[in-house]
Amino acid sequence: MTGLAPFQYSHRVQFYETDLMGIVHHSNYLRVYEEARVAWAHARGILDYQQPNSAFQLAVVETRVQHLKPARFGDLLQIDLLAKLEGARIVFAYRMRCPERGQETLSLAKTVHAALDSTLKPMRPPPHLRETMRTELERYPWTETWLLNL
Amino acid sequence: MTGLAPFQYSHRVQFYETDLMGIVHHSNYLRVYEEARVAWAHARGILDYQQPNSAFQLAVVETRVQHLKPARFGDLLQIDLLAKLEGARIVFAYRMRCPERGQETLSLAKTVHAALDSTLKPMRPPPHLRETMRTELERYPWTETWLLNL
Amino acid sequence: MTGLAPFQYSHRVQFYETDLMGIVHHSNYLRVYEEARVAWAHARGILDYQQPNSAFQLAVVETRVQHLKPARFGDLLQIDLLAKLEGARIVFAYRMRCPERGQETLSLAKTVHAALDSTLKPMRPPPHLRETMRTELERYPWTETWLLNL
Amino acid sequence: MTGLAPFQYSHRVQFYETDLMGIVHHSNYLRVYEEARVAWAHARGILDYQQPNSAFQLAVVETRVQHLKPARFGDLLQIDLLAKLEGARIVFAYRMRCPERGQETLSLAKTVHAALDSTLKPMRPPPHLRETMRTELERYPWTETWLLNL
Repeated sequence: MTGLAPFQYSHRVQFYETDLMGIVHHSNYLRVYEEARVAWAHARGILDYQQPNSAFQLAVVETRVQHLKPARFGDLLQIDLLAKLEGARIVFAYRMRCPERGQETLSLAKTVHAALDSTLKPMRPPPHLRETMRTELERYPWTETWLLNL
Repeated sequence: MTGLAPFQYSHRVQFYETDLMGIVHHSNYLRVYEEARVAWAHARGILDYQQPNSAFQLAVVETRVQHLKPARFGDLLQIDLLAKLEGARIVFAYRMRCPERGQETLSLAKTVHAALDSTLKPMRPPPHLRETMRTELERYPWTETWLLNL
Repeated sequence: MTGLAPFQYSHRVQFYETDLMGIVHHSNYLRVYEEARVAWAHARGILDYQQPNSAFQLAVVETRVQHLKPARFGDLLQIDLLAKLEGARIVFAYRMRCPERGQETLSLAKTVHAALDSTLKPMRPPPHLRETMRTELERYPWTETWLLNL
Repeated sequence: MTGLAPFQYSHRVQFYETDLMGIVHHSNYLRVYEEARVAWAHARGILDYQQPNSAFQLAVVETRVQHLKPARFGDLLQIDLLAKLEGARIVFAYRMRCPERGQETLSLAKTVHAALDSTLKPMRPPPHLRETMRTELERYPWTETWLLNL
């Protein structure tokens, strides 16, 4: 089945996320995108909060963030997330929009991750993760037009 | 009218809020308490996100946090908040509990704030703020037993 | 030997430590005070960076921060730190001043800590820590007048 | 004159910069790179701490971070920074190494910035900034081999 809306996550901008320019500090975008990624992993059953080890076997290898418009204190941010497997890497793409400002796109991003074994050495993603990623891509193929700008 | 439950706010602990001890870093408790305070101010109509100036005329004068049990990644934190005016100061008391862990109390806190004018000089709280605080204390008097430990 | 200046630590305020009020966010004071505490522990030989366990066996039990004047982007902050043992608790007192602004005191603080064993249960501070604390108090007794305001 | 070592900045990893994986949280790399960028701007005379407006007229347009090895609590990080003008954009490249671990490269990064006028609209970089960037590139041309991996 294809054509469904991708995974979505919402985040209300907090006061402590702003800086003296009056906007969200650029480092905090990676934190909001991480929130979305964690919520996705939890929704897909590959992250158990009680066993956070299941989560942190995914190391961050690369991050890339584009800033189109500043996010501000009190903004409700809506993040669309897409995920896929590329070889041994897990790749996420994100779009951040603000519904209260006419669905304006504020930021686009991509993060790349590697599976790690319990000694923190890179490993091939385990079967259940590969299966989850395969299903994810089938249901939510990377056909969104905003991906072209990433 | 008295005896109502005080204002409540919920926060899901994020991965980036933890430290290498595997628990929420103590500085982040002040951020969660700020989230609760901002949500309260918004609910009471004294904070307009579009005019953050209305918010930041409340400077932080003092903070005090007690740590009883560590909060962990994925925990859903529930914060009870009480507010009152003490002279020219606005005082908040907070209790943080974890419903998923038998309503165990994780932390108690108190923050003290001063109203500032537009040049960041301390001023007497304006009438609408004093009125809000008066109503708040009438409806939610500081009779909770956990206040005794603060 | 008494009367020496207490332990000092310097911190330059970074851009990402500010908020939309244009000043250092109040939660970041606890981070700067932690920097001072870690530097002190390292200087006293009770913290080995290569074995961070030696550090995190000190849990934060209580924090208290007074804000007298705001710290701003680019400020060089100078922290005085005093440490002592109170029963099974380790207590630190801090004063933050700004040499570039006439040694104006910006903030005072106190943090209380408990020793934990390797299973994170509270324990009596081990002998070498008690010895370090005894020496510290002998050399730097809590006679500073600013302690009276804490 | 060419062939000089590029601008360098050092940062000691703090406890609050780690996460429950026991390593520096990936969002904090952008903060350390910002520290280096601000120190560079200050050293070049284009940032006056007393007039932070001079700093924040440089908006962050894009960030890109590669993570090769994790940074850990207590690590002394050494950042090399290169800067140049590309059209109306100011581009920085960074290498993070750890001298105490055999100068191992931990991370590489690139950030892209736009000059803003006082109403936060993009503008052509002002003459003194263009002049600074020209001199910078002459003295520190982008000939480092690590740039090839960025």
